[in-house]
Amino acid sequence: MHQSPSPNTINRLPKYLRYLSGIYANGEDRISSFKMAEDMDLTASQIRQDLSQFGSYGAQGYGYQVPRLIHELKKILGIDNPHNVIAVGVGSIGRALLTHLNFTEHNYSVCAGFDIDPEIVGTTINGIPIYHADKLKEFLKMTPVDICILAVPASIAKETAGSIVEQGIPAIWNMTNVDLGLSHMKAIVEDLHFLDSLFALTYYLNENA
Amino acid sequence: MHQSPSPNTINRLPKYLRYLSGIYANGEDRISSFKMAEDMDLTASQIRQDLSQFGSYGAQGYGYQVPRLIHELKKILGIDNPHNVIAVGVGSIGRALLTHLNFTEHNYSVCAGFDIDPEIVGTTINGIPIYHADKLKEFLKMTPVDICILAVPASIAKETAGSIVEQGIPAIWNMTNVDLGLSHMKAIVEDLHFLDSLFALTYYLNENA
Repeated sequence: MHQSPSPNTINRLPKYLRYLSGIYANGEDRISSFKMAEDMDLTASQIRQDLSQFGSYGAQGYGYQVPRLIHELKKILGIDNPHNVIAVGVGSIGRALLTHLNFTEHNYSVCAGFDIDPEIVGTTINGIPIYHADKLKEFLKMTPVDICILAVPASIAKETAGSIVEQGIPAIWNMTNVDLGLSHMKAIVEDLHFLDSLFALTYYLNENA
Repeated sequence: MHQSPSPNTINRLPKYLRYLSGIYANGEDRISSFKMAEDMDLTASQIRQDLSQFGSYGAQGYGYQVPRLIHELKKILGIDNPHNVIAVGVGSIGRALLTHLNFTEHNYSVCAGFDIDPEIVGTTINGIPIYHADKLKEFLKMTPVDICILAVPASIAKETAGSIVEQGIPAIWNMTNVDLGLSHMKAIVEDLHFLDSLFALTYYLNENA
């Protein structure tokens, strides 16, 4: 790979994986880029161009072998490797994610949650122990953590994120709607902005009206 | 506007709005596309091209008037208009959204939630009444609803979504990770796939490692 794939390409890879896993579960083990494009509302050349940046996975006139492409996409995304995850802030949104998402299925092990609310500290959520935020430093000495789900109140988001990165966690999945401004620390941050998606829906709703 | 803006353009509009609202809150009322591009990790020509599809908002050598562009973006997205919202399914994820998101600030009025769990029905979440799903039809006769947050279990997602659209709700904000397959019904659907965002984060984590 000579040039880094664009963020848009990267953002499409999980969608390809989801689509392919779906059709494979339905017994399809071969797919053309044309059929994929039709089902996913993209163009075939877009799909071919995205995938060709990582290797040659399709054959002209044959299409893609679904299980092989699923395997390769998982490898490209890195989700064939296990990752240790913690959650910092387990109020309503942190709790919902720990309860709702199939982390294990995708090789993520959620080791612990951290909060300061005395009603939550000492409990478990979906089997995951919740510790006091004071214990984070100590915890990290014993358990290497790859990804922190950050779901603290907005008012303390930046400060908490900075301290998490200083303590050696390389990646933050940010639920706080706050721009963490961590680029100088070389932290890897992915923001999940719920309202962006609601606003896009609203655009299409009003466009159609 | 002669040609429909691309989904990628639409997806960037909420990000522009968020960025501009942030700098405006910090007292900046003028911004160049270059500064915006630098702060947002895009190119200036991308930003200009996106915005020019909706009107002429910037002046060469002056840049954009921040409050005016905020106003225009809200109008383009349709969020200057009020929208009535309900939630169908208020388990952990539905509850977290009703608790966590500032709907009111963006002109969304969340009128009610619907569920079948006897422990939830009859309660309120963040002041929003939760009714039994049986009452939805009756409710819709009295209250016009624009958007349904769908957060039911995956096993009943398609069936529930179909019934919601049949009952006249035009748009579904889909949290179920299930492809609702509603295009034949002309429903407007926006999927929020949490794991897509986590997978992208994982890609960058492994790329950097």
